[in-house]
Amino acid sequence: MPKLIEYKDMEPRAKAVVEGIAAARNIDPANINNVWKALARHPLVMERFAAEMKAAFVPGKLDPLVKELIYLAVSIANQCEYCIASHGAMARRKGMTEDMHEEFMAVVLAAQKGNKIAMAYRVPVDPAFEEQ
Amino acid sequence: MPKLIEYKDMEPRAKAVVEGIAAARNIDPANINNVWKALARHPLVMERFAAEMKAAFVPGKLDPLVKELIYLAVSIANQCEYCIASHGAMARRKGMTEDMHEEFMAVVLAAQKGNKIAMAYRVPVDPAFEEQ
Amino acid sequence: MPKLIEYKDMEPRAKAVVEGIAAARNIDPANINNVWKALARHPLVMERFAAEMKAAFVPGKLDPLVKELIYLAVSIANQCEYCIASHGAMARRKGMTEDMHEEFMAVVLAAQKGNKIAMAYRVPVDPAFEEQ
Amino acid sequence: MPKLIEYKDMEPRAKAVVEGIAAARNIDPANINNVWKALARHPLVMERFAAEMKAAFVPGKLDPLVKELIYLAVSIANQCEYCIASHGAMARRKGMTEDMHEEFMAVVLAAQKGNKIAMAYRVPVDPAFEEQ
Amino acid sequence: MPKLIEYKDMEPRAKAVVEGIAAARNIDPANINNVWKALARHPLVMERFAAEMKAAFVPGKLDPLVKELIYLAVSIANQCEYCIASHGAMARRKGMTEDMHEEFMAVVLAAQKGNKIAMAYRVPVDPAFEEQ
Amino acid sequence: MPKLIEYKDMEPRAKAVVEGIAAARNIDPANINNVWKALARHPLVMERFAAEMKAAFVPGKLDPLVKELIYLAVSIANQCEYCIASHGAMARRKGMTEDMHEEFMAVVLAAQKGNKIAMAYRVPVDPAFEEQ
Repeated sequence: MPKLIEYKDMEPRAKAVVEGIAAARNIDPANINNVWKALARHPLVMERFAAEMKAAFVPGKLDPLVKELIYLAVSIANQCEYCIASHGAMARRKGMTEDMHEEFMAVVLAAQKGNKIAMAYRVPVDPAFEEQ
Repeated sequence: MPKLIEYKDMEPRAKAVVEGIAAARNIDPANINNVWKALARHPLVMERFAAEMKAAFVPGKLDPLVKELIYLAVSIANQCEYCIASHGAMARRKGMTEDMHEEFMAVVLAAQKGNKIAMAYRVPVDPAFEEQ
Repeated sequence: MPKLIEYKDMEPRAKAVVEGIAAARNIDPANINNVWKALARHPLVMERFAAEMKAAFVPGKLDPLVKELIYLAVSIANQCEYCIASHGAMARRKGMTEDMHEEFMAVVLAAQKGNKIAMAYRVPVDPAFEEQ
Repeated sequence: MPKLIEYKDMEPRAKAVVEGIAAARNIDPANINNVWKALARHPLVMERFAAEMKAAFVPGKLDPLVKELIYLAVSIANQCEYCIASHGAMARRKGMTEDMHEEFMAVVLAAQKGNKIAMAYRVPVDPAFEEQ
Repeated sequence: MPKLIEYKDMEPRAKAVVEGIAAARNIDPANINNVWKALARHPLVMERFAAEMKAAFVPGKLDPLVKELIYLAVSIANQCEYCIASHGAMARRKGMTEDMHEEFMAVVLAAQKGNKIAMAYRVPVDPAFEEQ
Repeated sequence: MPKLIEYKDMEPRAKAVVEGIAAARNIDPANINNVWKALARHPLVMERFAAEMKAAFVPGKLDPLVKELIYLAVSIANQCEYCIASHGAMARRKGMTEDMHEEFMAVVLAAQKGNKIAMAYRVPVDPAFEEQ
């Protein structure tokens, strides 16, 4: 078990990050996720990650659920259990049904296969794929 | 340079796979992508990959562009240059603008950071993320 | 739970490896770390890993703590929980403060981002980076 | 070859990032590295990466060369050729001798082996490694 | 803990997959491995994986144990604990002795080192290795 | 292009390593592979890698071709182009036919899929897989 710091025991900078996240999600800061409790000992890294997450999920051209699926795809490729669990939960909350989850998995697994085939056969990039 | 087999020199089973793909994409089989020219020596693996790709991209609940973005996200996480080039091109053809590409990259990079933070701090999964 | 072999139950070659490590660290062989208890069933692999670790950490041009940070950086990139826990502990024993740990994490996370950016945009190596 | 944008053709926000880096390194903005020419199409991602790199390498508790070695270790573990070439060059400029490079490689390779051994034998974390 | 579905609670398509595997292995479907209980919510992905596994392990030119060792080697390189545990067990059932396991590990670890050396030193492929 | 050192320009320790390999393979030391020309600047790392490779491929319980396939499987999972090219060539020289290569690829790709499925669904290890 790594060192987790509860909200009430955090230093002011860490508390401020947690309060910002809690306000945005409309939850009690005491119920903040473990990733923030673990990061609280390194407030600078914590502030930067919170800012990067906020900016990545700010409303834009891509749908919020699509962003969760992109995040989840990276997490599966990187084999991060915490991120698969947390962003899987987020994706479900943002509307991912079992059918969509299955389609998503089919694409992830096809990509995994395509990646390994391209490497194993050392396939050179087609000129047609290059940007003009 | 690995061994690439041109369409005209492929064995019948490999030719059949290429013809199926060319028909679906409305292109000349002679212009098939390198990945299929490299796979042509292993027709069984080729047939299975073609079937898996077709099934993954069959119209369903997820938008075709969303599927390309999921495929691209996995390919970046796995660092497969061929797949980044080919599915980047596909994504642009299916409507990915520069703005969307930038938003996509912001999510991919946030996920990368989240993945490494979760591992580096050995963050335990929150009970709230578990499926009921 | 994998098969762990306690020091007292190890075969002579494995015991000898453990005794060498215990003597160098001034600990009781019975308190050897789990990695050696797991490796004890494969004495040749064990001997070679012990020799490689010893050679890598022999006093030289790089500071012992710097070597631990390099080891830890590789372990985070590779997402090895055991190695993150064990070499994180080693780094703290060799003088890593929370401030240094935070700086270290900032570099590791910047490198992670740089790595993925270079791959995602398929950046060609600048001629100026090549060695003469 | 991916799309690289020369300094003179960049949009104002990208130009500003390049000018900041060029000033800090005392070089002509026209000679900026390829990674920034590739990123110039996505100014927000570019600004954020430039800020993160600057913060990671700001003078602190860890020596500038040590930070380069940490960056290089992550890049080797992640197999990013561009980053190995660029930060290998940076490390040499900041004082890495061939002797230090060889010691560094010995630690990186020992870590790689340790990582795979810990995973292959599924070694459980020793209680002694946990932080209090 | 992820959501595992017991055989008796599976939908008909998932049940059919499990029955096929159970028959081939001569076991009670209720004792099917966890991977199939986890996949049961996504019957299409499940059917495709079962078919791919069956085809990969169909008797051919390579010995069944050799196939398990190849599978295990990939799983160690990818650091998949479940697959290391399950295919390690399969390999032992198909005849892997401790001596063979140790030899196998020696090759896996040498490959790991060779892979990282080739990347770290950016070694160009020798013309002699190219296929004619 | 990285710095490659030709045999005639190597220092004595590096020359000795190359001569040992050349003698074992019955080739002219001037025709040594690039990996050794790249490593020649770090003779200690070079000696250790040569020794580890020799020990891994010493005749034992596993067939020489099987060892090449294990090495190749790791190299594909790790996406090392140099190692895929070099050990693919070695495997062909040691008797890998196209049929065997295709079977090998089928197992490698099934393993890749199994690895990602186990991670994506966070499958817990079955008690039956644990060693007694």
